[in-house]
Amino acid sequence: MKKIINATDTIVRDTAYGLVKAYDNLLVLLENTNVIARKNKQEGKVGVVIGNGSGHEPACIGFVGEGMLDANAFGEVFTAPDPITISRAIVEGDQGAGVVLLISNHMGDVLNSNMAIDFANDENIVVKKVILYDDIASAPKEVPQERRGTAGTFFSYKMVGSSADIGYSLDDVARIAEKVRDNTRALTVATLPGTSPITGLPMFELPQDKVQIGIGIHGESSNQLIPMGSAQALAQQMVEQLLADKPYQSGDTITVLVNGCGQTSYMELLIFYNEVEKLLQQKNIMVYKPAIGSFICTQEMGGIALAFCTVDEELQKLWSYPTNAPGFPTLDI
Amino acid sequence: MKKIINATDTIVRDTAYGLVKAYDNLLVLLENTNVIARKNKQEGKVGVVIGNGSGHEPACIGFVGEGMLDANAFGEVFTAPDPITISRAIVEGDQGAGVVLLISNHMGDVLNSNMAIDFANDENIVVKKVILYDDIASAPKEVPQERRGTAGTFFSYKMVGSSADIGYSLDDVARIAEKVRDNTRALTVATLPGTSPITGLPMFELPQDKVQIGIGIHGESSNQLIPMGSAQALAQQMVEQLLADKPYQSGDTITVLVNGCGQTSYMELLIFYNEVEKLLQQKNIMVYKPAIGSFICTQEMGGIALAFCTVDEELQKLWSYPTNAPGFPTLDI
Repeated sequence: MKKIINATDTIVRDTAYGLVKAYDNLLVLLENTNVIARKNKQEGKVGVVIGNGSGHEPACIGFVGEGMLDANAFGEVFTAPDPITISRAIVEGDQGAGVVLLISNHMGDVLNSNMAIDFANDENIVVKKVILYDDIASAPKEVPQERRGTAGTFFSYKMVGSSADIGYSLDDVARIAEKVRDNTRALTVATLPGTSPITGLPMFELPQDKVQIGIGIHGESSNQLIPMGSAQALAQQMVEQLLADKPYQSGDTITVLVNGCGQTSYMELLIFYNEVEKLLQQKNIMVYKPAIGSFICTQEMGGIALAFCTVDEELQKLWSYPTNAPGFPTLDI
Repeated sequence: MKKIINATDTIVRDTAYGLVKAYDNLLVLLENTNVIARKNKQEGKVGVVIGNGSGHEPACIGFVGEGMLDANAFGEVFTAPDPITISRAIVEGDQGAGVVLLISNHMGDVLNSNMAIDFANDENIVVKKVILYDDIASAPKEVPQERRGTAGTFFSYKMVGSSADIGYSLDDVARIAEKVRDNTRALTVATLPGTSPITGLPMFELPQDKVQIGIGIHGESSNQLIPMGSAQALAQQMVEQLLADKPYQSGDTITVLVNGCGQTSYMELLIFYNEVEKLLQQKNIMVYKPAIGSFICTQEMGGIALAFCTVDEELQKLWSYPTNAPGFPTLDI
C-alpha cells in the first residue's frame, strides 16, 4: 500500500482537520467528536444531516455547506458512526425547526441512526428520517427499500439540502428526500480494486479482462462479471439496465451523475458521459445539468457509478440552487 | 490497460465532446479543430488562451469559463497542439483588446505557440506571450526560465483569467501572468505510475517502497528516489525544498495548491494538506484559500504536486474572483 497517510488510526481525524483548515470560514469540526458542521447557523431553518463511514471522500464531509448539508457525522473507514456521534450531528444541525436525517441504506447506518434519533428526541429535537436507496443491482425492483444506498444519494444530499436553505418546512424537506430517492436509480461498474487503508490489501480481485457491474460502494460483490469493453459498450449495458428498472421515458428530463469511484480519470468520465448522453438522446430523454467527477469514492477503486434522477421544475430549481459545499461541482450555467 | 475509452485515436475528441455536452450553456467546441472556448463573448475584454497536450484533464479544457480562460487549444495525449490549432484559439479568444497567450514551458508548446503568434499577428491580433515555469526540480533556481511548467501554472490560469474578466488592460493582464509565475514554486511527488492510454504501458517504474520527488507532469524522471514515508515526512521534505528555493517568509500570505496527480484520493490530499498547513504555521506563513483536488493530472498516476504562490491584496482578489470554469474548485468563502 502506498497511501499518503500517517497512521491507520489517525486517518479519519487527519482528513477532517485538513478539510476544516482548508475551509476555515465555512466549516467547523466539533471538539472530541467526528462531526463537521457549517459555521454559520440560520435560525428557523430545517437542518439536514447524515452519518456515514469515512473513506469515500469528498463524501460526505465535503457536502457540508450552504445549499447542502448542515452537519455530517463520520465513522471510521467504511464503518458507520456510532449513535452518539450521529445524535451530536443532529443537535448541531438543529436550528429550531427540526432535522431531516438522511440515512444511506446500510445496516450499521440504519441501526445507529435509529438510536441517534431516540437520543435527539430526548433533547426535544424533532427528527424525520428518510432512508436512501438507489442501487438497482442490490435487490429486485419490487423491494426497493432493500436496496443499498450508493452514489445516487448524491442527488438527495444536494436537493434536500437546497430545499432547506430555500426555506421549505420540515415536512416539505422530508417530502423532497423521498421524491428524489424515488426518482433515482444507480448502477456501478468496477474496473480495478481499491486498497483498504486499514488492512493494506486490495478490497477484491478482478481478472485483467473483466469488469464487475453492480458492485457496492464498499466493494460489495455482484454476480455480473462481464468482459472489459469500450466506453460505448459499457455505457450501453448500464443505461439499458437503468432504463429497464425505471422507465425514464421519451420527453422526460433527468439529471445524470457520472461518478468516478477513485482512480478513473476525468478524461474517462467525460468519454463515458458522451456515450451516455448519446444513448439518452436516442430515446429523447433530456439531460439537465449533469454532474461529472469523483464525489463518492471507494478509495482509489477504478470504475464509474452512473445515476439518473427525474427532475421536474421543482427539482431542477433545487439541483441548480447555489452551494459552497467543497465537494459539489460547478454545474452548467 | 483498463481504461474506459473507445479507441486511442478518438480519446481526445470524445473527451471534448463529453465536456461541451455537459457544459452546453457555457462552452463550445469549434468545428474541425481542437479548441474549446467560452460561448459568451465580452467585447473589449482581453482574451486569455493556452495550448496544451491532452491527458491531464480537467487541465486545461476544464479551465475555460467566466473568470478563467477564454479558449484552450488541446493537442493529442501528452502532445502539444499544432500552431494552426493554437492560432485558432487565439482568434477565438480575441474580443477586440488582444490576447495574452500563456505557455507552459515545454519545448513543443513553446515552439508551436511562437508560430501561432506569427499567424495571429498576420490577422492583426495583438498577442502577448508569457511562458510559465514553476517546477523547482527541473532546473536550478538561477535559471528559472529553464524550468518546466507543472501544476503551479494552475495559479496563473485562474488569476490571469480573472484579471481579464475584471477589465485589466492587455499590459496589466500580462503583468499579472509574470507576477503570479514569479511568485510561484511547485514540486511533485509520484507514488505510482500512470498508464499511457496510447501505449497501454506504465509511464515509468517505481519500487514498492520508494517514491520519486521532482517528477514532471508527463512522468519525466528526476534523481530524487526516496523511501515512501508518512504524509508528515513527505510534506516536510517538500515544504523544505520549496522554502529553500524561494524564501516565503514569516508574515507572508500565500495560497497553496495540493494537486492530486490522478489516483491519489481526496482523503490523502486532505491529510497531506493538514501537514503542510502545520509546517507553514510553524513558520508564521499564512495560507489564503487553498485549492485541494485533482486539477492537473498525469492520467491515473499516484502522487501530489504541491505549489505555493505569494498573494498580496491584488492577487487575493484575483484568486477568489468568481468563476464557473468546470475544473476550478469551490474555495473557502
